[in-house]
Amino acid sequence: MEVKVFSNILDANDRLAEQNRRKLASHDILALNIIGSPGCGKTTLLERTLDIISKRGRIRAGVIEGDIATSRDAERIRKFGVPVVQINTRGACHLDASMVGSVLDELPLDKIDVLLVENVGNLVCPADFDIGEHAKVLVISVTEGEDKPQKYPLIFRLAKVAVITKTDLLPHLDFDIQKLIADMDSIQKAQARFRLSARTGEGCEAWVEWIEQVRQELAPRR
Amino acid sequence: MEVKVFSNILDANDRLAEQNRRKLASHDILALNIIGSPGCGKTTLLERTLDIISKRGRIRAGVIEGDIATSRDAERIRKFGVPVVQINTRGACHLDASMVGSVLDELPLDKIDVLLVENVGNLVCPADFDIGEHAKVLVISVTEGEDKPQKYPLIFRLAKVAVITKTDLLPHLDFDIQKLIADMDSIQKAQARFRLSARTGEGCEAWVEWIEQVRQELAPRR
Repeated sequence: MEVKVFSNILDANDRLAEQNRRKLASHDILALNIIGSPGCGKTTLLERTLDIISKRGRIRAGVIEGDIATSRDAERIRKFGVPVVQINTRGACHLDASMVGSVLDELPLDKIDVLLVENVGNLVCPADFDIGEHAKVLVISVTEGEDKPQKYPLIFRLAKVAVITKTDLLPHLDFDIQKLIADMDSIQKAQARFRLSARTGEGCEAWVEWIEQVRQELAPRR
Repeated sequence: MEVKVFSNILDANDRLAEQNRRKLASHDILALNIIGSPGCGKTTLLERTLDIISKRGRIRAGVIEGDIATSRDAERIRKFGVPVVQINTRGACHLDASMVGSVLDELPLDKIDVLLVENVGNLVCPADFDIGEHAKVLVISVTEGEDKPQKYPLIFRLAKVAVITKTDLLPHLDFDIQKLIADMDSIQKAQARFRLSARTGEGCEAWVEWIEQVRQELAPRR
């Protein structure tokens, strides 16, 4: 019975996610659903990404910030002069399609090429909920240990792209990045991957180039 | 309607948690529910804790490992020669009282003084589910950033004790531990706190002494 309720919730969510996807497509917007543990560096990655996007000047970004409480992340993002909306989930451990759908019209959709949605810090539940994104972005930091792909397989399987953060800390860790990548390969080989450090800037340009390229592929397709 | 279903689930969980708590009390067992993000160092903390507990020889430990998939953590724990049971939640993002209750009898309860339960790596959902523990233990690593108390307030409020891990990395981070602790204080002042590094051993003895002391206070109380 509990399973049935949950399955109904997911069906309803999928319908709303499709509505969001259609609305975003009608504005030529690429939407990325950014998922990772608390403290893996999602907001810092966003800050660095927005900085590079604005310097390159090829695409315009918008941001939805998801958090259980506070609007701290949205305040960090606002400094970059991009449209940003904060969703407070009030205890819920993930964003869902209804939450995202209810704020889309708060954004100037005709002035956005890429919508970056930062999900609640959680490697588990956000993977279950399509929000209408074109790709899930997995963010994992090198401080989290190599065993995460086997332990949280769903998000490692579903993410079209993975960003491995905090690589500047590698010299100070007992962390085997080759082991991590081998385990990621065993779950999903067709995944774009970036190793980057928001602190040193290593890998950040390549990541933004990937976003620009996927956005370009998307636009003529509709 | 969704809220009602959820509230029924939580009521049922609370009843089962009380059953677990009574059963544990009848065996003089202190149960700790260890909660933290993926990669915050829960299993490594457990390894170090079991090592020190066995060297001090004052209490006997048992372990329940919670994971979405794999039995890797239980295999890491088995090496320490303590009774250990692995729960695979098959996708669920937290342990609940029913899962824990269903494995208690797999453990030699008369030979255990402290039951260490490692929850699924998740800073959100496990906070909602009482499993019959005597205290929730929050594990947070210094690599996760200082803003976690405001962003995940429930677990910071409910945890009787907090363990701040990976302190050996502090020299390599832009991390203000005083800011973290001030924010933790603003949510809950009456919380035992330990700063430790499983790598260097800093703070680990004090943490185990706390466990021994709480166990001693518990036993005569029943």
